[in-house]
Amino acid sequence: MFESAELGHKIDKKTYRKEEPKLRADLLDVQYDLKEAGRFPVVILINGLDGAGKGETVNLLNAWMDPRHIETHAFPAPSEEERQRPPMWRFWHALPPKGKIGIFVGNWYTDPIVAKVRGATKRVELDQSVDDILRLEKMLTDEGALVIKYWFHLSKKNQKARLEKLEANPKTRWRVTKHDWDLFAQYDKYVKTARHVLRLTSSGHAPWIVVDGSDENFRSLTVGRHLLQALRTRLAQKEDKTSRVTAAPLAHALDGRDLINALDLGQKLAKAKYEEELERLQGRLNVLSRDPRMKARSVVMVFEGNDAAGKGGTVRRVTAALDARNFTIVPIAAPTEEERAQPYMWRFWRHVPKQGRMAIFDRSWYGRVLVERVEGFCAEADWMRAYAEINDFEEQLSRHGAIVLKFWLAISKEEQYKRFKEREKTRFKRFKITEEDWRNRDKWDQYEMAVCDMVDRTSTGHAPWTLVEANDKNFARIKVLRTLCERLETELKRMKPLPDKAGKAGKD
Amino acid sequence: MFESAELGHKIDKKTYRKEEPKLRADLLDVQYDLKEAGRFPVVILINGLDGAGKGETVNLLNAWMDPRHIETHAFPAPSEEERQRPPMWRFWHALPPKGKIGIFVGNWYTDPIVAKVRGATKRVELDQSVDDILRLEKMLTDEGALVIKYWFHLSKKNQKARLEKLEANPKTRWRVTKHDWDLFAQYDKYVKTARHVLRLTSSGHAPWIVVDGSDENFRSLTVGRHLLQALRTRLAQKEDKTSRVTAAPLAHALDGRDLINALDLGQKLAKAKYEEELERLQGRLNVLSRDPRMKARSVVMVFEGNDAAGKGGTVRRVTAALDARNFTIVPIAAPTEEERAQPYMWRFWRHVPKQGRMAIFDRSWYGRVLVERVEGFCAEADWMRAYAEINDFEEQLSRHGAIVLKFWLAISKEEQYKRFKEREKTRFKRFKITEEDWRNRDKWDQYEMAVCDMVDRTSTGHAPWTLVEANDKNFARIKVLRTLCERLETELKRMKPLPDKAGKAGKD
Repeated sequence: MFESAELGHKIDKKTYRKEEPKLRADLLDVQYDLKEAGRFPVVILINGLDGAGKGETVNLLNAWMDPRHIETHAFPAPSEEERQRPPMWRFWHALPPKGKIGIFVGNWYTDPIVAKVRGATKRVELDQSVDDILRLEKMLTDEGALVIKYWFHLSKKNQKARLEKLEANPKTRWRVTKHDWDLFAQYDKYVKTARHVLRLTSSGHAPWIVVDGSDENFRSLTVGRHLLQALRTRLAQKEDKTSRVTAAPLAHALDGRDLINALDLGQKLAKAKYEEELERLQGRLNVLSRDPRMKARSVVMVFEGNDAAGKGGTVRRVTAALDARNFTIVPIAAPTEEERAQPYMWRFWRHVPKQGRMAIFDRSWYGRVLVERVEGFCAEADWMRAYAEINDFEEQLSRHGAIVLKFWLAISKEEQYKRFKEREKTRFKRFKITEEDWRNRDKWDQYEMAVCDMVDRTSTGHAPWTLVEANDKNFARIKVLRTLCERLETELKRMKPLPDKAGKAGKD
Repeated sequence: MFESAELGHKIDKKTYRKEEPKLRADLLDVQYDLKEAGRFPVVILINGLDGAGKGETVNLLNAWMDPRHIETHAFPAPSEEERQRPPMWRFWHALPPKGKIGIFVGNWYTDPIVAKVRGATKRVELDQSVDDILRLEKMLTDEGALVIKYWFHLSKKNQKARLEKLEANPKTRWRVTKHDWDLFAQYDKYVKTARHVLRLTSSGHAPWIVVDGSDENFRSLTVGRHLLQALRTRLAQKEDKTSRVTAAPLAHALDGRDLINALDLGQKLAKAKYEEELERLQGRLNVLSRDPRMKARSVVMVFEGNDAAGKGGTVRRVTAALDARNFTIVPIAAPTEEERAQPYMWRFWRHVPKQGRMAIFDRSWYGRVLVERVEGFCAEADWMRAYAEINDFEEQLSRHGAIVLKFWLAISKEEQYKRFKEREKTRFKRFKITEEDWRNRDKWDQYEMAVCDMVDRTSTGHAPWTLVEANDKNFARIKVLRTLCERLETELKRMKPLPDKAGKAGKD
């Protein structure tokens, strides 16, 4: 990867002075074209060796272009907020919206490479990080982002010469610390690891651009000109909304038997029994939620279901057992303008709860494979790849300790009709029923098919779906509460008991 | 993944008898449309549980369609031939050409899953296999193949019932062996592993289709109808030759300094010195090539270079030191019709040498990022992704023990002119110079750029490029021979010495 960058490139001062004014004017122009078009975000990754001009280049790009439309992010050691969420959370948080440029100095490559060089991780863990990165960048480019990755390189000889030169000058001597020489001692190891990572992540859709960092003029013009060309090329492309599907279509059961119609929706729970169970389960849930070990875990609950299936009422029976300071309900409606300017999963990443907290999603990221699929709000290729993206998201959550539960509340078409009619009659419920609800009913079969595909393709060991028979509200609420309690108990059992106050280990 | 497939689907005999004749007629029609169009190959993977109807379905597909245009492959334990090459070799070997259907019963999923269930491999190794598979399937679909993956499933209850039923009948009792019950004891482990693998490999471009295998009618109609729909959908799509590039373009040194023009082409070797060195190095190479430890290794040499750079003469100096029974020279010209009907890398996979042998490629898979890129013979997106595909190929080679060496023979534009003119004058060399050679010269700079990108992006620790200054043929030949000898020595040093005949370990 670094062969060309070790040749010792140079641009003389005169050439630079001649080129620079034109280049910065062009960059400013193209930046405004980008903003005007508002079609795609630009993600620029700045990586490489210390002293190879990473910081200088970032400052220069901000000086050349309009810094109001550039978001520059450095990622030092994760904050408390960040550590309490999956590692990728802080990067999602910082993604630029369409039309803007986000510069990431230090990014998803930094920690994996540094940890490996330090010996804190093994090759296997590095390769796991590489897989995560590949999935993230694939998703970003599939969602239309232009991802540009610059690696600033210095040969070992140049790195040494740089440090020695700084040390020789009394005015710059302070800039060289023992840490710099310690880093230099790791040069070979660092470059070897970097080469491995760069090779594995130099994909057709997001290749690395290696820049020789030894000469300032050369490196500045290189990045400037390349960025200009990249933006111009992409802006000149016609927008292609209909990504091509090359996959075989999904299959559906020919005998009409599916996960939904196989449910026994006749299941009921009498009022007295319901009230007794409700009290007992809410008590149990309350105790579980206050277990001190839950401080290290988060809970992510997803409620999806047919219109009028009783999601709201069920959620209230759950939250009644919880401390309001510990949970957030996230209602998901049509995306806002801010959200539409981001990759699809962005608006869910922003609501990922930190450790010790619960997030209850009233509708969720599954919209893409349900309503967006059925109503044609996204291209087939987009919802086809969404299953893998969703599984990846939920795996990241659970790898970081989140307990993920997903409920589909199912009612029959007749029951829905009854409830819709009721809502129209009841004044305070009338806001709950719209023309759209009636229209969605016409596509009942397509929705059913989409639900079955969703469950088959995203029910996993760490994030299973629970299908809830909800024609009887009592039955549904109790099933949800019981599932929740049992899952939390299972998860707690897997954790080590905390020592009690007297210093003894508590009973499991 | 298996939720829907455990519902117990059924199609009654009457329905089946009614549907089947129409379906098979349609399948036969679409098979001929596929053949006629000759635009893409169809790769059907058949996986799943024993007894779930894998074999029956394959037979049925062959009965329904014209078996002359279906290639069915089973992959039992690898043969000696196959074991001596990277694991993916035998699958590459079996890929169907455009217009044909290849059915793979047992395939790249079989061994990784079985090995993990048996405890022969760890999760890490399984995930490494999954990565290999993802890259292979991505490449296949990028190259236009329609990849359809069927997983035949049986619930634990159904599996048990099936075995008991077979045992209860005296006529079928023989079909159930202890092995079947041993497998059944592993059911949970097997299904858990499969679920993990299916989830990770159910991509947007090649999703898994899970089929309930418990009812023969249901399963047959399901696969038949799905296959029909998949073929029809794909055939109805317009061919889109210009895949869209979403990546930023590559960057090139602004100061005009690159790996090629940085070479000192003036280096020379006087005749006497050359002859002395040649004899010495050829002797050394001969000894190395006869080292018994080389029986476990293969050698892959790639010779690329400017036209008239002297590849042929250099290759002859190498082979002169080798036993002709141990090497093959593979000259790569324009692809044959057979080769054009396959993914790009296919024609190179077929020449992968087995252990103990050497393959010398006179031009190679680098054509895609050289001539095809410069002459526009393939789309930009295709050569952009080729770097990753090539690195993946060479990594598979070296992981399997191949020693990979790559030489670029560089001459100056003036030297080339001289040699072209000479060739035109020398009668027996005239066949070596064509109009095309003169035309290629016009694109000298573009070729130079492509060579530099190639070296930067594909020179790896296990498969490095050696740039050879070849204006002086003597110098070039000696550099190649010396590089080759040194590399073989390094590789042999890394291997354990074989015990000598007296049973003592030899000196390293």
